[in-house]
Amino acid sequence: MKVKVFRKEHFNAAHRLYNSNWDAEKNKTIFGKCNNPNYHGHNYDLTVEVEGEIDQETGYVIDIKILSDIVKEQVTDRFDHKNLNLDVPEFKDLNPTAENIAVVIWNLIREKLDSKFTLTIRLYETERNFVEYSGY
Amino acid sequence: MKVKVFRKEHFNAAHRLYNSNWDAEKNKTIFGKCNNPNYHGHNYDLTVEVEGEIDQETGYVIDIKILSDIVKEQVTDRFDHKNLNLDVPEFKDLNPTAENIAVVIWNLIREKLDSKFTLTIRLYETERNFVEYSGY
Amino acid sequence: MKVKVFRKEHFNAAHRLYNSNWDAEKNKTIFGKCNNPNYHGHNYDLTVEVEGEIDQETGYVIDIKILSDIVKEQVTDRFDHKNLNLDVPEFKDLNPTAENIAVVIWNLIREKLDSKFTLTIRLYETERNFVEYSGY
Amino acid sequence: MKVKVFRKEHFNAAHRLYNSNWDAEKNKTIFGKCNNPNYHGHNYDLTVEVEGEIDQETGYVIDIKILSDIVKEQVTDRFDHKNLNLDVPEFKDLNPTAENIAVVIWNLIREKLDSKFTLTIRLYETERNFVEYSGY
Amino acid sequence: MKVKVFRKEHFNAAHRLYNSNWDAEKNKTIFGKCNNPNYHGHNYDLTVEVEGEIDQETGYVIDIKILSDIVKEQVTDRFDHKNLNLDVPEFKDLNPTAENIAVVIWNLIREKLDSKFTLTIRLYETERNFVEYSGY
Amino acid sequence: MKVKVFRKEHFNAAHRLYNSNWDAEKNKTIFGKCNNPNYHGHNYDLTVEVEGEIDQETGYVIDIKILSDIVKEQVTDRFDHKNLNLDVPEFKDLNPTAENIAVVIWNLIREKLDSKFTLTIRLYETERNFVEYSGY
Repeated sequence: MKVKVFRKEHFNAAHRLYNSNWDAEKNKTIFGKCNNPNYHGHNYDLTVEVEGEIDQETGYVIDIKILSDIVKEQVTDRFDHKNLNLDVPEFKDLNPTAENIAVVIWNLIREKLDSKFTLTIRLYETERNFVEYSGY
Repeated sequence: MKVKVFRKEHFNAAHRLYNSNWDAEKNKTIFGKCNNPNYHGHNYDLTVEVEGEIDQETGYVIDIKILSDIVKEQVTDRFDHKNLNLDVPEFKDLNPTAENIAVVIWNLIREKLDSKFTLTIRLYETERNFVEYSGY
Repeated sequence: MKVKVFRKEHFNAAHRLYNSNWDAEKNKTIFGKCNNPNYHGHNYDLTVEVEGEIDQETGYVIDIKILSDIVKEQVTDRFDHKNLNLDVPEFKDLNPTAENIAVVIWNLIREKLDSKFTLTIRLYETERNFVEYSGY
Repeated sequence: MKVKVFRKEHFNAAHRLYNSNWDAEKNKTIFGKCNNPNYHGHNYDLTVEVEGEIDQETGYVIDIKILSDIVKEQVTDRFDHKNLNLDVPEFKDLNPTAENIAVVIWNLIREKLDSKFTLTIRLYETERNFVEYSGY
Repeated sequence: MKVKVFRKEHFNAAHRLYNSNWDAEKNKTIFGKCNNPNYHGHNYDLTVEVEGEIDQETGYVIDIKILSDIVKEQVTDRFDHKNLNLDVPEFKDLNPTAENIAVVIWNLIREKLDSKFTLTIRLYETERNFVEYSGY
Repeated sequence: MKVKVFRKEHFNAAHRLYNSNWDAEKNKTIFGKCNNPNYHGHNYDLTVEVEGEIDQETGYVIDIKILSDIVKEQVTDRFDHKNLNLDVPEFKDLNPTAENIAVVIWNLIREKLDSKFTLTIRLYETERNFVEYSGY
């Protein structure tokens, strides 16, 4: 009897899209206004989905406080009010597209989440553009 | 050619989290402010997802009126403006966590829904905390 | 050059509508299902609106952290995960309709808010029912 | 390492539900107010979900501009501010229920979308009624 | 001690923008795709705002049930799942722009609403386009 | 017979809060994480409110296309996917708080908007923090 539990968090960050193997012109062509050298930014909404069995004593799949603390420690404290390209080591050599940010967040949460749970990440860059990653 | 049909409903209810096998102190430790003996409450949003074949005559998987009537009879009329712990028999001995409420709702709707349809329930306790159950 | 600043907060609470001068039957007739003796509940969304001049040094009308701390101390810490009728002294003899809750919240915030600011409270009981109070 | 990418678009259209094999009375009985001969309408919200591998050079599964252009050409330009029954050839002999509209949209996008991607369509007729189709 | 009470309702309708004093070409030039002779449609969201004193016995400015019934009788029953141009007499000779619809709705509700209350109507044609009218 | 017309637009931008008359420490103390030298960012939602008489021929207060074009030319084209501190001349010596951004936007739109209309700007920095400015 498996139930999925979802927790929604958010962080505000600056970023730019950029591939260091390309010259400025190609970066501009491929990434358009997202390539602005001075950065732009987003209110990122993050939904963390954890699937597991209901614990018969608590009635919880996972205490949402534990899940929320993992997200805070691994993601929000490190990404919120930051420049993803400059302040977050994972993006030193990785282009911070929504897709790549989702994979990085999935890995960061997976490290701390009990292996009995499955994990899916949904990341909203805007209300109209979002991505989802389940680890495979 | 299967299509999923979703119907969103809502109900407002009081509840508290509580395990009758534990003493007051342990209940307080585990459930925190959700354990308040005087109850608190939520606007629950409920999304009912039904998957099936499109009927070639109507163009419907299911007449949404039929689905909505099932939800009204089985869930809304019994849960809305109620105290889940005191007024809803299913929670007499079952802790009304979002997870357990979702399972109870799934069972209540499943009873009345044609067996040719699959059923998934998503229950929002708040915009930031929600759960999903598909019956297995 | 006056600007309005808005901060949105929320709290989850149980309540029932009830007039102690009326008998049970009249309470039931007037307040319907909102009169359930075992309470029901809501996710209350609260928008606090403060109008004032922009401070030339900070660029703020008010540091949102200060406003948020007032709301936390005066409202959220006292209302969240509570039973408004039983746990919040202001409603001992006052019916906790959305209208009355808004007036109580306005008074509680007004006490701590610098008198140079005007104050308006908007309180959402549900997405479809909400009220607004400006203190006069 | 597959990631799902979602793009949300919208269009406003008139329609009526109607089965040409039935007489007026039966149409009225089955489709109720949705059968109004003079039509009614909706703000349709459309979420297009594309799953694929992250391209190592761009960090994209698909350039959202390419996806958005396909939706514009195949769906929005043809459906927006139109009468689905009268102006969109696909519904000449097909009842424009949410289910059938979703299947039509899926087919229209599938034609232009690289076959390496999987495709799912979610169509909101209202906030409370929506459907999803994945092509099988 | 005046409080504003808001009630949100909705209706789905078809319409087209059209001025009968102009020829087809001028209508097309001015109203663009909103002039489609076959109509298009919207999910209209309507917020009705009523301001008045709190009744000391009920704690209500107005029983929301009374307000909701007025909106149902005067607006929803007459506009929902209708073609505004063809089915609603008020628009026989009046162009159903959001502005004009709001004025018509204000007049319809004002007829039935106790004169001790002030009335404001907000009408959302889409999430991005909306209007407000207060009767003067 | 005056009606308010609202148009919602959005832009994504990076910024930091900073007062050039203060040293780094004081900036850090007052502006906290919003002072990050590498910037952070937001999805800004902008609602432009214009009040005026309904034109009897068109049924419009203002053609929303004209209003939208003004916002695009004056605001979106200049702010979207930009760094407010570095790329937008108005903030060269002005701290880009939500309050100051709203005043700048109001002035930019006012320049191009017919003087017969009143103008109010609402700017959402996040869903929970927003400001409003009416020009006085």
